Amino acid sequence: MSEGRGEGEKGRGVIIKYFHPMSIPYTGRELRSHWAYVNFGLHGDSIVSFIGECNVKRENLVDLNDALKGNYIYSPLMAHFIVEHFDMDLEKAIYRQRLLCGCARNEIAIKNRAAPISRWGDDIFLADRKMSVSIATISPISTMIHLGINIETEGTPVPTAGLGELGIAPEPFAERVMEAYAMELDSIRLARAKVRRVD
Amino acid sequence: MSEGRGEGEKGRGVIIKYFHPMSIPYTGRELRSHWAYVNFGLHGDSIVSFIGECNVKRENLVDLNDALKGNYIYSPLMAHFIVEHFDMDLEKAIYRQRLLCGCARNEIAIKNRAAPISRWGDDIFLADRKMSVSIATISPISTMIHLGINIETEGTPVPTAGLGELGIAPEPFAERVMEAYAMELDSIRLARAKVRRVD
Amino acid sequence: MSEGRGEGEKGRGVIIKYFHPMSIPYTGRELRSHWAYVNFGLHGDSIVSFIGECNVKRENLVDLNDALKGNYIYSPLMAHFIVEHFDMDLEKAIYRQRLLCGCARNEIAIKNRAAPISRWGDDIFLADRKMSVSIATISPISTMIHLGINIETEGTPVPTAGLGELGIAPEPFAERVMEAYAMELDSIRLARAKVRRVD
Amino acid sequence: MSEGRGEGEKGRGVIIKYFHPMSIPYTGRELRSHWAYVNFGLHGDSIVSFIGECNVKRENLVDLNDALKGNYIYSPLMAHFIVEHFDMDLEKAIYRQRLLCGCARNEIAIKNRAAPISRWGDDIFLADRKMSVSIATISPISTMIHLGINIETEGTPVPTAGLGELGIAPEPFAERVMEAYAMELDSIRLARAKVRRVD
Amino acid sequence: MSEGRGEGEKGRGVIIKYFHPMSIPYTGRELRSHWAYVNFGLHGDSIVSFIGECNVKRENLVDLNDALKGNYIYSPLMAHFIVEHFDMDLEKAIYRQRLLCGCARNEIAIKNRAAPISRWGDDIFLADRKMSVSIATISPISTMIHLGINIETEGTPVPTAGLGELGIAPEPFAERVMEAYAMELDSIRLARAKVRRVD
Amino acid sequence: MSEGRGEGEKGRGVIIKYFHPMSIPYTGRELRSHWAYVNFGLHGDSIVSFIGECNVKRENLVDLNDALKGNYIYSPLMAHFIVEHFDMDLEKAIYRQRLLCGCARNEIAIKNRAAPISRWGDDIFLADRKMSVSIATISPISTMIHLGINIETEGTPVPTAGLGELGIAPEPFAERVMEAYAMELDSIRLARAKVRRVD
Repeated sequence: MSEGRGEGEKGRGVIIKYFHPMSIPYTGRELRSHWAYVNFGLHGDSIVSFIGECNVKRENLVDLNDALKGNYIYSPLMAHFIVEHFDMDLEKAIYRQRLLCGCARNEIAIKNRAAPISRWGDDIFLADRKMSVSIATISPISTMIHLGINIETEGTPVPTAGLGELGIAPEPFAERVMEAYAMELDSIRLARAKVRRVD
Repeated sequence: MSEGRGEGEKGRGVIIKYFHPMSIPYTGRELRSHWAYVNFGLHGDSIVSFIGECNVKRENLVDLNDALKGNYIYSPLMAHFIVEHFDMDLEKAIYRQRLLCGCARNEIAIKNRAAPISRWGDDIFLADRKMSVSIATISPISTMIHLGINIETEGTPVPTAGLGELGIAPEPFAERVMEAYAMELDSIRLARAKVRRVD
Repeated sequence: MSEGRGEGEKGRGVIIKYFHPMSIPYTGRELRSHWAYVNFGLHGDSIVSFIGECNVKRENLVDLNDALKGNYIYSPLMAHFIVEHFDMDLEKAIYRQRLLCGCARNEIAIKNRAAPISRWGDDIFLADRKMSVSIATISPISTMIHLGINIETEGTPVPTAGLGELGIAPEPFAERVMEAYAMELDSIRLARAKVRRVD
Repeated sequence: MSEGRGEGEKGRGVIIKYFHPMSIPYTGRELRSHWAYVNFGLHGDSIVSFIGECNVKRENLVDLNDALKGNYIYSPLMAHFIVEHFDMDLEKAIYRQRLLCGCARNEIAIKNRAAPISRWGDDIFLADRKMSVSIATISPISTMIHLGINIETEGTPVPTAGLGELGIAPEPFAERVMEAYAMELDSIRLARAKVRRVD
Repeated sequence: MSEGRGEGEKGRGVIIKYFHPMSIPYTGRELRSHWAYVNFGLHGDSIVSFIGECNVKRENLVDLNDALKGNYIYSPLMAHFIVEHFDMDLEKAIYRQRLLCGCARNEIAIKNRAAPISRWGDDIFLADRKMSVSIATISPISTMIHLGINIETEGTPVPTAGLGELGIAPEPFAERVMEAYAMELDSIRLARAKVRRVD
Repeated sequence: MSEGRGEGEKGRGVIIKYFHPMSIPYTGRELRSHWAYVNFGLHGDSIVSFIGECNVKRENLVDLNDALKGNYIYSPLMAHFIVEHFDMDLEKAIYRQRLLCGCARNEIAIKNRAAPISRWGDDIFLADRKMSVSIATISPISTMIHLGINIETEGTPVPTAGLGELGIAPEPFAERVMEAYAMELDSIRLARAKVRRVD
């Protein structure tokens, strides 16, 4: 039997969402193709979230600007997101990264309306304190995004803010960010299919 | 709650399948962008099937080779498929057309193992009688495929064969072809996501 | 003489920004390729802003969903943005539309920190009142975005809010949105050029 | 002198076909960019066929699903095909792989009409016995396909069938498959150039 | 029999070259998709040359800059080239146009070594007199190039030079330009297939 | 304030030009992604020129045809150009390489009008002596071009000519070639934005 008149167009997004309930320290080496497939059996475009320390040494930095300056990335506890899309258009990956950061910003703002939360490029700020690290890049077979949102901030190398001080519980936050990202992608997919061309 | 470890990767294909239960004569004008959206409310990539006469006059032909020769297309009764994908790569559309024709060939072969069914390019033959017409082209906003499989063949301008003489019921046939096409697309999507790059 | 070591990488964005100081009523027919070139001599990717009524009749709607429902678009006064990029990837156009809406949302939030402003897909809301209309589509030679932000709201067909009630002056707002969009694009361009590939 | 009116459109396919007359054991390491160029001087898109054992150890598997399960690939004697196209669109490579498998299926069916031969995705079956292994992937500079069709089957790890039991001589079979693949590609190239756009 | 070791890589270019021996006045309306197919039966990418007047009225201009200024194009006699490639990347079409203009420049220089011939963008000059008109654009299904080289120049609206005064016979010139363009494309195709990727 | 009516469309090219005033021997290892960023802080698409020996050993050759023949590249002194574009379309990179070679040919011809300078594919010749070496290839994140023009020629493995014997000073030559390349790219960008589509 087929799907019937006018049905079937909802919820067809093809990105798999998965929150991993155990802590994983993020070292930068997790940002590699098929990481979600090899570790969690997720087959296809995916967004995975987990909680853990963030400690990216210089040799694992993807951002050459940071690497050349001898920077490193550290946060005692972050909500991490690793996204993989099996296409190879880095420009699109960066657009998606910006939208993912926007999703995270929104979820923080919803939970704490008094907080002056903003997104600039791929950074999320609470007033002038940085809440996030993020990178979008290409692998031999896909594009990948990492986004980490501080939960705690002790020992970070720059002034930072975290979900903890805003009273936001990390796991539900992570679930909502993944859901919002999937909805954004689905809304974009549907937007392609409803417009006529102009002259 | 997220989807859990390793779940969620099946059945995520994003093509909508719809069999329309009432007869529609195919004139060529149905092969236009958003036809499935405007007529059946199908929002997104779709494959629609219906049963009806096929009568494409010269001015509605998409194949310029036929149009220049003054050809026309006629069949008293066909199982029709109209496919729309919201990308704009005609080469991919032709690959998909070939695969759709292959799906139709398979379903005929499965139902009638004695029949010498073959696909050559975008044509399906029963021995040397033509069973199908097909075209793949581009619209201003999408790519589109039409495939028609003869049910009856009286009055066709070239030697033809039809599903009727093979004892194949059109509607279940159409449903199976749509299902096979959707599975082929899904299998291709998953194939992208499981291979490592070679050197 | 060449540009010297390490200089020259700032401000190289290639989108032309232009605020037109005279009122133009937006009817939907302005969303056509080369509109900025023919009317204002802008040669290349561009974002143009102007202020005027918004009155898009059904036959000029680009959104088929609205057109099929018999909807129309009306606002007595809007700040309009028309964007043209000379590539033909509709998916990228929609990503850019979402980022443009995000830029507009930010500029409203900055000027009125108490306002509960949010972006959902291509809509901007003040609490549950709609502040914007937007569409992204393709032309024969480019991709195009329209974004209109209500200034006044009398007579709109759905509950709306406008810049006027928030005390935001339209022209400086429009200038800031265009600047933010150009900076977002430039930041994306530079982000491509600083990352190493991961494995 | 030029090519004259209406001539010149036949046989212009740009894929080089080559059957190598000496046995080569396939280990998986042959599936690398420029293999046909370095070994046989073939310059451009190519399909090469040869006959030999198939023994792909886990570390040379391209299919991560197989690699993760600890699978290996073994066949005592296969007709092998290695295809290289100098573009970098993996989705197209998979479409082409499916069409190549379809070509091989057809050639078997033509030679042995009683055999219940089918293609499912990238697999060819004789009833429920597997006749083939295949993978499509990307290299740093091209896309690549391997297809192996069993000739003999002793010692294979799953139930298999081979060309030998069907009385099909491998070398002429390989030549016909390469010819059919080249014709399919050429027919797709020509199909692009004869259709008008629909609305 | 296959093509044998190392053979087959020469002369495989897929562009059809055709010099039409009868005069055709060029009005701008010839620059449309499938013009070579409908008029000369050329099926696939093609370059067609013919000799005739050039008289493009404002309404047939493809260059909006000229159209807005009220310009027109006139030459009493030109060697014309119409090129069609069945892809839809305008940027590539413009690259190819520049290379075609370079081919024409070379052939003039070879025949008249004393002539100070140069190419600037898509224009060919003899000292400061213009020898050519050219445009590259997109059709609904392909990209297209027109290049016209003056043979005679009486009555042209700007200072011009022509093949006549240089003593260059138009038809052999046209044949050589088409051959050079085809060789350039083939050399580009082969260049893709011989390089390894760098780090 | 915005940029004003009709202004702003000039000089917006996004390629950074840089002549490095100190000698660098070219070994082939310089042709790697981010070389201009890491060494000179150039962030974005760039063309860098410098003067130095050219000595590319077999293992650093990018051209497999040369590598297989055991060739090497040597010139005692060259003007070198290294170009990086942050897209990944090798075909476009080769088009750009041909245009860059054309720019270099032009600049030589302008300075020495008696010299019979020609470009064939990616080679520049003075009569039948080779003046250049060049390659275009892909990196994991960009496309890259190397072009070297002989200044001196003692000890080169094939008959060559150099800028020295033509009395052309290398540094101003290099600056002019970079400027011409940037102008060619900018002219192509603008050409995209001024044409209407044909039928």
